[in-house]
Formats: sequence, C-alpha cells, structure tokens
Amino acid sequence: MHFKIKRLKLLNALSKATRAVSVRSPLPVLTGIKFDLKSDQLILTGSDSDITIQTIIDQDDDLEIIKEGAVVLNSRYIFDIVRKINSDDIEIEIIDGLLTRIKGSQIEYSLNGTDAVEYPRIDLSKTGTHFIMSSLVLKNIIGETKFAASDKETRPILTGINFKAHDHVLECVATDSYRLAKKIISIDEDVTFNITIPKLSLDEISKIIEVDESIELYVSDRKVLFVLGKNIIQTRLIDGSYPDTTRLIPLEFDYELDINRSDLLNAIDRVSLLLNEQNNIVKLDMSNEQVILSSYQQEIGSVEENLSTSFYKGEPLTISFSSKYANDAIKSFSGEKVKISFTGEMKPFIIKDFDSDELLQLVLPVRTY
Amino acid sequence: MHFKIKRLKLLNALSKATRAVSVRSPLPVLTGIKFDLKSDQLILTGSDSDITIQTIIDQDDDLEIIKEGAVVLNSRYIFDIVRKINSDDIEIEIIDGLLTRIKGSQIEYSLNGTDAVEYPRIDLSKTGTHFIMSSLVLKNIIGETKFAASDKETRPILTGINFKAHDHVLECVATDSYRLAKKIISIDEDVTFNITIPKLSLDEISKIIEVDESIELYVSDRKVLFVLGKNIIQTRLIDGSYPDTTRLIPLEFDYELDINRSDLLNAIDRVSLLLNEQNNIVKLDMSNEQVILSSYQQEIGSVEENLSTSFYKGEPLTISFSSKYANDAIKSFSGEKVKISFTGEMKPFIIKDFDSDELLQLVLPVRTY
Repeated sequence: MHFKIKRLKLLNALSKATRAVSVRSPLPVLTGIKFDLKSDQLILTGSDSDITIQTIIDQDDDLEIIKEGAVVLNSRYIFDIVRKINSDDIEIEIIDGLLTRIKGSQIEYSLNGTDAVEYPRIDLSKTGTHFIMSSLVLKNIIGETKFAASDKETRPILTGINFKAHDHVLECVATDSYRLAKKIISIDEDVTFNITIPKLSLDEISKIIEVDESIELYVSDRKVLFVLGKNIIQTRLIDGSYPDTTRLIPLEFDYELDINRSDLLNAIDRVSLLLNEQNNIVKLDMSNEQVILSSYQQEIGSVEENLSTSFYKGEPLTISFSSKYANDAIKSFSGEKVKISFTGEMKPFIIKDFDSDELLQLVLPVRTY
Repeated sequence: MHFKIKRLKLLNALSKATRAVSVRSPLPVLTGIKFDLKSDQLILTGSDSDITIQTIIDQDDDLEIIKEGAVVLNSRYIFDIVRKINSDDIEIEIIDGLLTRIKGSQIEYSLNGTDAVEYPRIDLSKTGTHFIMSSLVLKNIIGETKFAASDKETRPILTGINFKAHDHVLECVATDSYRLAKKIISIDEDVTFNITIPKLSLDEISKIIEVDESIELYVSDRKVLFVLGKNIIQTRLIDGSYPDTTRLIPLEFDYELDINRSDLLNAIDRVSLLLNEQNNIVKLDMSNEQVILSSYQQEIGSVEENLSTSFYKGEPLTISFSSKYANDAIKSFSGEKVKISFTGEMKPFIIKDFDSDELLQLVLPVRTY
C-alpha cells in the first residue's frame, strides 16, 4: 500500500470513520481503521460491530495511488497524526511487513499496523426496504427524541428510537417510561417498517451529518444502512417489538399553559438551582391570577418564581415534575412559544410548539407530599 | 441584616470570596461565605483555613444598608443565586432567625443560613514586613513557576513557591526535584525574607488579579497577607526551610540550541503523540548538520522530526527528557525564540528566553537504553 493524499481530505474521512470505533473494543483489530487502497479509491472502515462507518475517497488530484494494498492502523494514533502533522500533503506507505510510514515534509511516523485479513468481513450490501429522506430532517428527529430514550439496559428496546413507517407517514418515538418524545413527518415513499435503532448509533450518524443532502436508507430485519454522499453507515437494530405508546398520550385537556420557551427554560434553571440529582422536583401552581414555579430542598431552602409572562386557561391546578425532564423536553423545540396541556394533577402532560403539532413531548408528573 | 445591592457588584465580590472556599471543608461553616453588614460597608469572607479571602463593598449608590447584621450562607448556593437571578437589584434580608430571603423582581429564594458567631475568627491584621509590587508582575511569576512545584505531599516544602528577598532582589523558585523554575526580579524596598507559599494559594491569588494595580504584601513568620484594592487575601506559609537550589544550576555550557519557541512546542506535541503518561520521553539528536527530535513507543511505533529552523552550536549531543516537563518549561516564556543550554548527556539543561535572563527553566534529562 502506497499513496499520497491531501492532509485535509484524509482528516475529514478519518474524522467520520473513527466515530464508529470504540477504543475499548474487546476485539483488538476493531480499535483500528481499515485502510483498503484499490486501483481507483481508498476505502476507510471503522466499526465497533454495532455500528460500521465506511468512507470512500476516489482517486483525483488530491489522491495519488502508487501501489494497492491494505492495512489496519490504530484509529487514535492515525487520527492524531493526520490532525497534527504540519504539511499539506501526506505520504503513507507500508515499508516492511505491516510497519507503515506516514510522512510529512519534516516528520516521519512509523506505525505498527495489523494485517487487514484479521478485520471482520462486514456485509454492507444495499438490500432491504429503500427510501430517501433529507439528512437535516433525520438530524432534527434524532436531536428532538434521543434524550427521552432510556440509558438503562434493563429494557434494551427502550434504549433505541423507534421508527415506524406506514401510509407515507414516519413516526419516531423514544421513551424511558417516565417521559416520551414523538415526532411525526410525512415521507414520499409508501414504505412500511417498524424498527428500533440504538440511540448511540443515531448519535454518531447525527454527528456525521453536516449539510442538507439526501440520505438513502435500506431497512432490513436486523440492520439498517444509511448512504450519505461518500459515507456508508450501517447499524444493527434492537431486537423485540417496541411497546405501543399511543394509549399513553392523552387526547383531551382541561388546562393549558402558554409561555415563552426561553423564559420558561430560564425559570426552570433558576428554580432548580437548590436541587440535586436525587431531588430535582419543581412544582407549578397555576390559576387565572398567577402561575408560580417553585421548589423546596430540605435543610437548604426554597424558591418561588412568578411566571408573569405566561397565559393560563383552566381551573386552578398544582402539578410537580422533574426539572430535568421538563428542561430536556422544552429545549427540543425551536419556536418562540410552547403550549403545555394538562389533564390532571397525576396525569401525564404534553408539550408542543405553539404553532405546530409535528413534535410532541410527554412528561409524567410525580407525587409530592 | 437587610440590604439592597446591584446584582453585578455582589456577583463580582462573591466570585472572589468563594475562591477561598472548599466545598469539602471538614468544618461545615467554612463551606459558607460570611456576610457581615456594618453601618457603612458589607464585608464578605471566604476561607478554607489555609487561605482566606475578604472583599469589602463600601456603602454607595449600589449598596443600600437597611439594617446591620451577619449570617453565613452556603457559598455554592448564594453564588449560583446571584449569578442566575434575573434582576439588576437584589434585596437580601434575614427574615426569621437564620432564614435569609434573597429577592429579585419576580423570584424569591429562602436560604437556611448559619449563625455568624460559629465562623472562625481569622486575624487579618496588617503586620510583618511590608512591601509593594505590581499585581501583574506577581501574576506572571506565579504562571512562570507554579507548574514546576511538586504535587506530592511527601516533601511538603516542594509544593510551594519559594520567595526570597534580599538586597532589592526577589528570587522566586519552584521545583519538584526533576525540574526547576526560577524568576528573579528587582524590587524597590530593601526587605529581607525567605518564605514558601502554597502553590494552591498562589493559584487563587493569580485568578483574582485582573488588572495592573499595586499589591501590598505583609510577610510574617507563619503567614503572608496581600492587599489588592478592596480585597484582602491571607495564606499560611509552608513550614521548613526551602532547599538551596543554586548548586543545581550549571553555570558553564558546551552546547547551545536556539529555536523558535512555538516551532519547538509544536514539534514536541507532534513527536509525543504516540507516547503516554508512563512513557513520555523524547530524544534530541543534535549536530551542526541537523537537529532531530524523536520518540519511540514499544509496540506502537516511532517518529522523527527534523527541526530545520533551529541553530545548534557544539559537538554532537544526544539527550532524552520528559516531553511534559519540556513543554511546561517552554510554554512559560513569551518571547519568539528560546535558548537551550546543555553541559552533557546526563546533566540538567536550562532554557531561557533568547533575549532575557529574568526567567530560567531547568530540566533533568533521563537515561534511555
């Protein structure tokens, strides 16, 4: 293997492929990036066996292919080298067995590589249900829902985001059973599937999306493959059927609070500053006269804020909830105002953008005494 | 206690006094800030018993004193409240025993305070050898030397910076016995003392210094007091006599390397990227023909960089040293070029600014096989 390449071109590709690599992989070869130099392209692959990211650099003025070949190089070292080396062009060559030389104008690294035949064969074939969506729409869905997915492995299915497509509609749901995020969008293709993608994989995909372009998706039973420009990302799916969450979401509401989104976020921040991880409960006291957000922390003290810019409709209502869940949910919106709808003191409440129904956040209240 | 104050004025004072507070203090009252409201001023005190910081706010248009009194408020909560409260003016009042109300325009906090009589009496009298220096000169001394002081409590005296004054000269030395930093400046007063100040205290003092002003120092046997505008900072000294380090510093040199400071820092960064905390040794091979910086990491690989912009004078010399120590030492200079002087492969070498002798950094080489 022997080639010359523009540093920034290689750095950009490595920054994507290394996203899939886990430095603590039980399989040592997976702590590396596979360099596969063909006659007309360089293929970089990173994987932690849950998620695989492959990036292709075609031969052009920025890539001069001198001799084909393949090697696996430790992802951390090769990424740091290409990031820090001080020349516009880099030459990479296997000089002796697996010893690989990475050469800049004044500096020369020698890295011990691993034989590429030890790298697992990963099937990245484009099979399964095919459809296309905008990369930024997908990135938004991930950002608007993933925080509501569970961090606990006790119910693995809840650590993913559920994507359900039918009748030109895509429903995306995440829940940890204390709160739920749901985004509904329309899609061009009439495809039908119901899959749950690990949120960690979606997180990495989200970080790779930089500009608005089309993403092709290939959905099969056990995996989904994303094609994004010169990048292929494949992730396993989570086994099992996702719980039906439609019954959880109330449809009729007796109380409604309209409020400026950033005012509410700031008030939650101020009112929760005496709280801690064990107790992060805030309380809303709402009536037509005033809306008070408050909290109380044993031994430390208490705080009350008058949400004077809010508008409340309904009988007086008092409801307590996690300030963290409320904060996560409210932050996921981008509009100026949010609408919070309640059905009772101990019933889940939902948050929506004041002008749009696409995204719904649901939070379960807690009992306080 | 009852007063009204401009939020930013109180925030600025609290940001200083809280620097002395350790949240893990074994004495619970020391996790608080003492508010002492007199007829004409508000005195805020924070302390961890090693270091004490007191800030005074005089009565003026920004501070309206309604009723004198005192209370100790948890430093973390009162600082966060004053930082996040959304009004220009804050009213603070003891409303019931020690319960203290902090009031903004729409928000009201109630904090359980601690009785001020429980706060230790700390003697902040201005006694001892008195002299004056520029705050920025002190800040520079701290930044240029503290990293060389020891982190280990095995020899407590080495965890401080030694300040020795005699004949209008102030010598400041820090060493962990593997490297040494020494700054010499002239001072106006003919004072004589030899004290060692904990580097953690100096770190906090350095953070409080924002503008160039005069600092008054009062040096006694067991403590030193700094007066900086409306702030008083007092720190204990470290017991014991500081080792005599003059013999360690070579006076004659057979080899000299002159090099652009940032070029050398970047080269060290690039050459040490294959290294880790256990092995951070880099090697310099110098001759009139070329100067090579290299490193080798078992199983990982190796790297060599040609320092083509350097100028070397002397017989060929090879010397190995910690990249971290070299990096810390070189970073402490601010000039464009540094001069590194050697006396032999296993002898300490020294680094100075190319144009100035005020600051000296010494590094011990290591043996490599």
